[in-house]
Amino acid sequence: MEPVSAAVSAVLPAGGSGERLGGATPKQFCGLQGRPLVSYAVRAMERVSWISDIIVVVSPENIETMKSIIEKYGHKRVTVVKGGITRHRSIFNGLKVFAENQSSNRLLQKPEVVIIHDAVRPFVEEDILLKVVTAAKDHGAAGAIRPLVSTVIASGEDGCLDHSLERARYRASEMPQAFLFDIIYQAYQQCTDHDLDYGTECLHLALKYCKTNAKLVEGTADLWKVTYKRDLYAAESIIKDNLSQQICIITDLKEAVAQVGFLLHESLKSQVKVEAISISLSKNDSHLQNIFSGECYNFLCINDKEYATEEIQQLVDMLEKSNIPLLYPVVLILVHLSISENISFSIGLEELTKIKKFAREVKKKNILVYGLLIQCKVFLLP
Amino acid sequence: MEPVSAAVSAVLPAGGSGERLGGATPKQFCGLQGRPLVSYAVRAMERVSWISDIIVVVSPENIETMKSIIEKYGHKRVTVVKGGITRHRSIFNGLKVFAENQSSNRLLQKPEVVIIHDAVRPFVEEDILLKVVTAAKDHGAAGAIRPLVSTVIASGEDGCLDHSLERARYRASEMPQAFLFDIIYQAYQQCTDHDLDYGTECLHLALKYCKTNAKLVEGTADLWKVTYKRDLYAAESIIKDNLSQQICIITDLKEAVAQVGFLLHESLKSQVKVEAISISLSKNDSHLQNIFSGECYNFLCINDKEYATEEIQQLVDMLEKSNIPLLYPVVLILVHLSISENISFSIGLEELTKIKKFAREVKKKNILVYGLLIQCKVFLLP
Repeated sequence: MEPVSAAVSAVLPAGGSGERLGGATPKQFCGLQGRPLVSYAVRAMERVSWISDIIVVVSPENIETMKSIIEKYGHKRVTVVKGGITRHRSIFNGLKVFAENQSSNRLLQKPEVVIIHDAVRPFVEEDILLKVVTAAKDHGAAGAIRPLVSTVIASGEDGCLDHSLERARYRASEMPQAFLFDIIYQAYQQCTDHDLDYGTECLHLALKYCKTNAKLVEGTADLWKVTYKRDLYAAESIIKDNLSQQICIITDLKEAVAQVGFLLHESLKSQVKVEAISISLSKNDSHLQNIFSGECYNFLCINDKEYATEEIQQLVDMLEKSNIPLLYPVVLILVHLSISENISFSIGLEELTKIKKFAREVKKKNILVYGLLIQCKVFLLP
Repeated sequence: MEPVSAAVSAVLPAGGSGERLGGATPKQFCGLQGRPLVSYAVRAMERVSWISDIIVVVSPENIETMKSIIEKYGHKRVTVVKGGITRHRSIFNGLKVFAENQSSNRLLQKPEVVIIHDAVRPFVEEDILLKVVTAAKDHGAAGAIRPLVSTVIASGEDGCLDHSLERARYRASEMPQAFLFDIIYQAYQQCTDHDLDYGTECLHLALKYCKTNAKLVEGTADLWKVTYKRDLYAAESIIKDNLSQQICIITDLKEAVAQVGFLLHESLKSQVKVEAISISLSKNDSHLQNIFSGECYNFLCINDKEYATEEIQQLVDMLEKSNIPLLYPVVLILVHLSISENISFSIGLEELTKIKKFAREVKKKNILVYGLLIQCKVFLLP
């Protein structure tokens, strides 16, 4: 991906009350697979290396909740800011952190481009962020759009149809949006109280107050806003799907073990994306690094060494450093192949205790380790 | 609910290709809990007693698929009609069944009001159907609307924002819609090829060709259209939720058994809606009939008679007649309390075989029977 040649930061308004969801918890704090929605959106920003600061704006009563989420999920580069009573006032508060010295917050470095993204759109990819940022650099403002799903109509005062809009001519304005900081900040500074209280659309403010026509960028379907309870169901199912999309099979270099890895790859590949690599774990393999930087959360590690403790520790360290387990739990299944001519086997209680203790330790790092011991008898064919 | 004083039928366009879903199967035929989406929408119409005929319009290659769905799920009052190449042409084909004697279809009685509803909106309730039908009788046309979730914008030719619409002034036009048959049929007869090929909105045709301003009726969030894969996830989760919303505990009149039912009710009521009734199953109880006509799919039947075969058969017959199992599987758990002073017990192989055979039989009727035998010792307190 092209590098971004501008200082970029992001503001995530997360002050909504989630009335349309019909629950007591605002939707940005609802748990998906046990983790609050806002944490997914923050993580989506955080994994983009060229975004410097992430400002999360929450209503006063949720500041402590938000801070504890940041701590629990190890979010970095995040500043929590107190929101206003409307969406626009909250975003304005978020922007002020870069421009005004506030008593409670240190002044952050003013970015050239600022991304504005909803805390309730968890699936934003680096690709679309790059597109809106690049377009904002050129045009002053940019935003993701999607085709309309339903026809939009205007009703008359009698509650009857006045006219319907030609669907092809209009688009739904979604997030992320990006702006030259000076443009959007100036727009908010000039903004009337009426717009601050009743408006919802940042692109509109840039147009109205700074005569900046935002560049519209076609976004993907996954950018939709979690609004209703059914959207939480949908988001949770997408997360589950993502988690089980890919498996990485790692074997050591011994032929018999690598062969098992190959056969497993063959039998799994019709159901799931499989990567199979044979490496010496003691070396820092670049191929493995690539897998770690992808979206893989399932690892199957096969070896024939008894209790390959060092190699396993190495793998766990690499996983931890990769930041993968920060977003979702990583499943690591250790398969020990015991290949011999005699089926006779026992595992010592001491070894078992050691492995269990190890699994307990790494679970704290969101890595779930399971062990599998397979004893196979080798038949030597003529 | 008020009775409807008009002959009403429904047309369900189900000819879409589901491109936006990204799968090979058109979305209306995708399975939710094993049952195709279109079947849920048909059933939603079918359970409304005042809708006479249900016309499902499918593309030529899916006619046999649709017919087999109708047979498999026991749909009644449904006629399958061959669709055209666009949505409007398909709806027009559906309407023609009432107005023109077609070679392949018998002429159905022309309704005063016709409902048009998407096959991919499975959660339409009688309440909203009644509202749009009543409004259509008065105004000639009516349709369900929803608030806009995103701001709608118009783009200029340069791909930049031209203007954004004030969200509060506009609505998303959803389904169901209803029309005086003569109005919508006349609109389609006068409709240009361009409108038939590129238009999507029936309310617009009624306005353009018959000067009929449709009455707009505020609908519920569940009326949304299954469009993307995430919507299938959401729909499936809603169905699962509905299925587990309510449980009905039925006990016979004996005090000890009724007491168990009462205690179970007390311990479950914080988690789920529970109805507990003590009745003699041999009488046709009106309270039980009410429960059957509700949305209950889980029944727990407790008795202390050994193999209360007759009563169970009675319950299954009542369930079957209620049509509940047509939409979803009904779970019926039979609990036999064996209350005695001695714990000593055995179940004969013959009895077990009989119960298993019974369960196998009723499974064909979409009723899943499970048996539970609990032996309890009675302590007589002074």
